[in-house]
Amino acid sequence: MTDRLLDVTALEAALQRFAEERNWQQYHSPKNLAMALTGEVEELVETFQWLTEEQSKCATRDPKTAQAVRDELADVMIYLVRLASVLGVDLNEAVVAKLSPNAQ
Amino acid sequence: MTDRLLDVTALEAALQRFAEERNWQQYHSPKNLAMALTGEVEELVETFQWLTEEQSKCATRDPKTAQAVRDELADVMIYLVRLASVLGVDLNEAVVAKLSPNAQ
Amino acid sequence: MTDRLLDVTALEAALQRFAEERNWQQYHSPKNLAMALTGEVEELVETFQWLTEEQSKCATRDPKTAQAVRDELADVMIYLVRLASVLGVDLNEAVVAKLSPNAQ
Amino acid sequence: MTDRLLDVTALEAALQRFAEERNWQQYHSPKNLAMALTGEVEELVETFQWLTEEQSKCATRDPKTAQAVRDELADVMIYLVRLASVLGVDLNEAVVAKLSPNAQ
Repeated sequence: MTDRLLDVTALEAALQRFAEERNWQQYHSPKNLAMALTGEVEELVETFQWLTEEQSKCATRDPKTAQAVRDELADVMIYLVRLASVLGVDLNEAVVAKLSPNAQ
Repeated sequence: MTDRLLDVTALEAALQRFAEERNWQQYHSPKNLAMALTGEVEELVETFQWLTEEQSKCATRDPKTAQAVRDELADVMIYLVRLASVLGVDLNEAVVAKLSPNAQ
Repeated sequence: MTDRLLDVTALEAALQRFAEERNWQQYHSPKNLAMALTGEVEELVETFQWLTEEQSKCATRDPKTAQAVRDELADVMIYLVRLASVLGVDLNEAVVAKLSPNAQ
Repeated sequence: MTDRLLDVTALEAALQRFAEERNWQQYHSPKNLAMALTGEVEELVETFQWLTEEQSKCATRDPKTAQAVRDELADVMIYLVRLASVLGVDLNEAVVAKLSPNAQ
């Protein structure tokens, strides 16, 4: 296992700049961001909830669903990186530690 | 805005290898992975639910909570990258599109 | 503790009739209903996520928010009773057992 | 449609008494209770996430799973009724309004 599995530093910096420009830091407590993350994940769940597993594998063949899924995955990533950022957590280190043979 | 905000290709490849080695692909439908993602996010929410916003900002001062939060953030990232992978979605492209001035 | 804390039999029967009339039983697996329940709860969470706790206590002073919250609470109840119904669980018995002194 | 689909008044009173006895009211903001409700629903989702829909229909044949599912359904009901209570929402009225022919 390498010690570099992901790099989100540019996204983290962009989100910090966005929050500063809009004065959103006051709302970005870990508690609020965790709730927002739940909301974004839920939109993904709703996309698949009435599909069978087989249907869910083909969901992105429909261009409109594919666009919605891309947007929702992006939103989850954005809130995940923002939450880790305000908590001071290095996501790459956390993932490497989680996937290391010792942690399995 | 740059066109490279994040890079998860090494993690995506590692997770694909893990799934193949354990014959987990049969379980990794988008439907199941979206549910699993919800579960991981929920563990984060539970960490913060009885804290005030101010307390949530200091939650990681306690080493045990800090470790738990790192593990939970890592799990969310792992399932998010795996879900995007089985759906064939490029997370960097999706995030760049989402944050582009035209999409705001 | 009494042995009768809640009664949802009329709602359970109404939902069964609705599902039969619309031929929805095929979609109403526990797996799908649990996902749908998550979605309804999430709409509640979104109502409160950017509010402080104090603000959340006053959220229903605004008539439009109050109506939205009533609708979302109703949806959660509807899916909860439907899920228990397809699983054959008696919700009153389950709640009485959970709140009994022995279970605490 | 009748105007009485459910009755949770005894449970609502029991939960109010529990909260008063334990001085929990300070934690029971709608924001916190909505997060807690999410957590309880998530435990249900986790029960079913790696099952197929067909398997999910038979999940309660296993006595241990059946007990876990009963407990989780009870927890969702408890938090749902408590949340409605602190918000001053009459759940029966809300459900009747939601299912009325005009609201469909």
